Amino acid sequence: MVNIKDVAKEAGVGLGTVSRVINNSGPVKESTKNKVMEAIEKLNYKPNEVARSFKMKQTKTMGLIVPTLWHPFFSKFAMHVEERLAQLNYKLILCNSKNQVEKEISYITMLENNKIDGLIAITYSDEIDQYISSTLPIVSIDRHFTNDVIYVTSDNLSGGELAAKELLKRGSQRLAYLGSQSMIQNESKNRVEGFKKYLNGKEKNYKLLILAEPVEDIHANVKNFLEENNDIDGIFCINDKWAKITIKVIHDLGKSVPDDIQVIGFDGVTASKDEELNLSTIVQPVQEMAYSAVDTIININEGQNVEQKYVLPVSFHEGNSTKN
Amino acid sequence: MVNIKDVAKEAGVGLGTVSRVINNSGPVKESTKNKVMEAIEKLNYKPNEVARSFKMKQTKTMGLIVPTLWHPFFSKFAMHVEERLAQLNYKLILCNSKNQVEKEISYITMLENNKIDGLIAITYSDEIDQYISSTLPIVSIDRHFTNDVIYVTSDNLSGGELAAKELLKRGSQRLAYLGSQSMIQNESKNRVEGFKKYLNGKEKNYKLLILAEPVEDIHANVKNFLEENNDIDGIFCINDKWAKITIKVIHDLGKSVPDDIQVIGFDGVTASKDEELNLSTIVQPVQEMAYSAVDTIININEGQNVEQKYVLPVSFHEGNSTKN
Repeated sequence: MVNIKDVAKEAGVGLGTVSRVINNSGPVKESTKNKVMEAIEKLNYKPNEVARSFKMKQTKTMGLIVPTLWHPFFSKFAMHVEERLAQLNYKLILCNSKNQVEKEISYITMLENNKIDGLIAITYSDEIDQYISSTLPIVSIDRHFTNDVIYVTSDNLSGGELAAKELLKRGSQRLAYLGSQSMIQNESKNRVEGFKKYLNGKEKNYKLLILAEPVEDIHANVKNFLEENNDIDGIFCINDKWAKITIKVIHDLGKSVPDDIQVIGFDGVTASKDEELNLSTIVQPVQEMAYSAVDTIININEGQNVEQKYVLPVSFHEGNSTKN
Repeated sequence: MVNIKDVAKEAGVGLGTVSRVINNSGPVKESTKNKVMEAIEKLNYKPNEVARSFKMKQTKTMGLIVPTLWHPFFSKFAMHVEERLAQLNYKLILCNSKNQVEKEISYITMLENNKIDGLIAITYSDEIDQYISSTLPIVSIDRHFTNDVIYVTSDNLSGGELAAKELLKRGSQRLAYLGSQSMIQNESKNRVEGFKKYLNGKEKNYKLLILAEPVEDIHANVKNFLEENNDIDGIFCINDKWAKITIKVIHDLGKSVPDDIQVIGFDGVTASKDEELNLSTIVQPVQEMAYSAVDTIININEGQNVEQKYVLPVSFHEGNSTKN
């Protein structure tokens, strides 16, 4: 059966070029495009055979790209990816990208060249889109690529709603959201959207502090904000890192948590299995996200139908930064 | 040129068996041993060609086994291993063993079958020794295997001495060491040895609390110890986890850190790059350890001489659990 590699060989171009032409998913010179189209016609190639061509040459290895392993969310996620892969008799090839787009592209090339069977990517680079084709077995975590790459995410919108709901239920009256915002489309923006949606529904006012990434000095910005808004008594932060800094600022201002101000974070991942989660936070289902990403790639390679996105439920963890 | 695989094939046994015979490094049946010796003689095989045979068939991948990735030390270590490998154009295949010896053996088999070019192992299993041969390009972190496996470690002995020295220098008079001890030979035992050595040299008394692993309830044990020894004013803990629990116990007992009791930990690894290291602790050179492990394997495969162990220097980090 004709596959994408035959087309690439016939046209004298790389696999990535062929997939970009097929999917119209990135820049290709007109003359190159013509060569690819001619090869497709000559070989009577049908693009929906792509999945099968990958399946036929299994390496039983999968790639994972994270910005850095040295971070509780990414290290726990990577642990669960490897755990699931091992159950399925796959090996994990792991990459810390540090958001270097060249390093990310090298893994996509490995995938195109059938050196790995699939790729799970957590990336915040904005240049990577043009190299990714939705015909490759790639699953993204959180980030929407602008093309149709499949992604797995936790339910950030419901997480934001849940945080607002818990703060109100536990007695806060004057709420605020604190966080940063990236220029790149990503799921975490839904956290503040959920928060606003819930409070708008209740006709409650709220304050927002949203800073453009990268934020130089979160502590100083939060301090200014809380000094200017000294009646705030309930805060939802974009993530646990912000929540911990916010609690420190509150203490520095001579107030107490949770008695004066309740704080809820987002992530819910401790540094290791041994550590207790003391913060009140919205917990991402890290293990389920990892398993779902792996299983989706397996399903793609087996030619099964998969969803375009998987949104997994979050939960509230009651720690010591909210009242009970 | 004849290599170890030819010998294995001729003898009709696995590579591991051949290397165990060559190195006399594990149990092999007498009849099997004879077959291997006959094959070696027939083929005129010279064991010092092993390194070259590995080099000739490079996969440009290296394996790393850690007990779990979800732990600051291991995740930072893995990050630096991948970082160094990427500089050398190698890929990392990563395994969370959870100390399951079967999973560890499967990676050693991959190495024996030339599916990876080398293996870096952090393992606390006591059964793994018999499967590891010193002719394979394996580097261990911390743990001594009973045979001649090369290892990289931080200078635990000097770390213990340094902790004792810093506690005395900063005014503590009645010192204690708190930690656990595994039945398996490992480098962390040198932490208490260094501590004792320094204090014996100064003719200072000290107390020790050393519990057999696994310790059920560190908090309760430390609390009992400090209640029975309520004059202690300086403590060195086996690692930062113990130090954090100890500080909690001291607060629970109504005392303060560092004014009443100074505490020094060991490891010095925060949960991520963003976090500050607040604890006073002996810092392991994690990046240097990772780079040294990778470079040692490369050197083995290039047939260069390598040391049997690499002991890398530690340093004292002044946090807020000691006086300045």
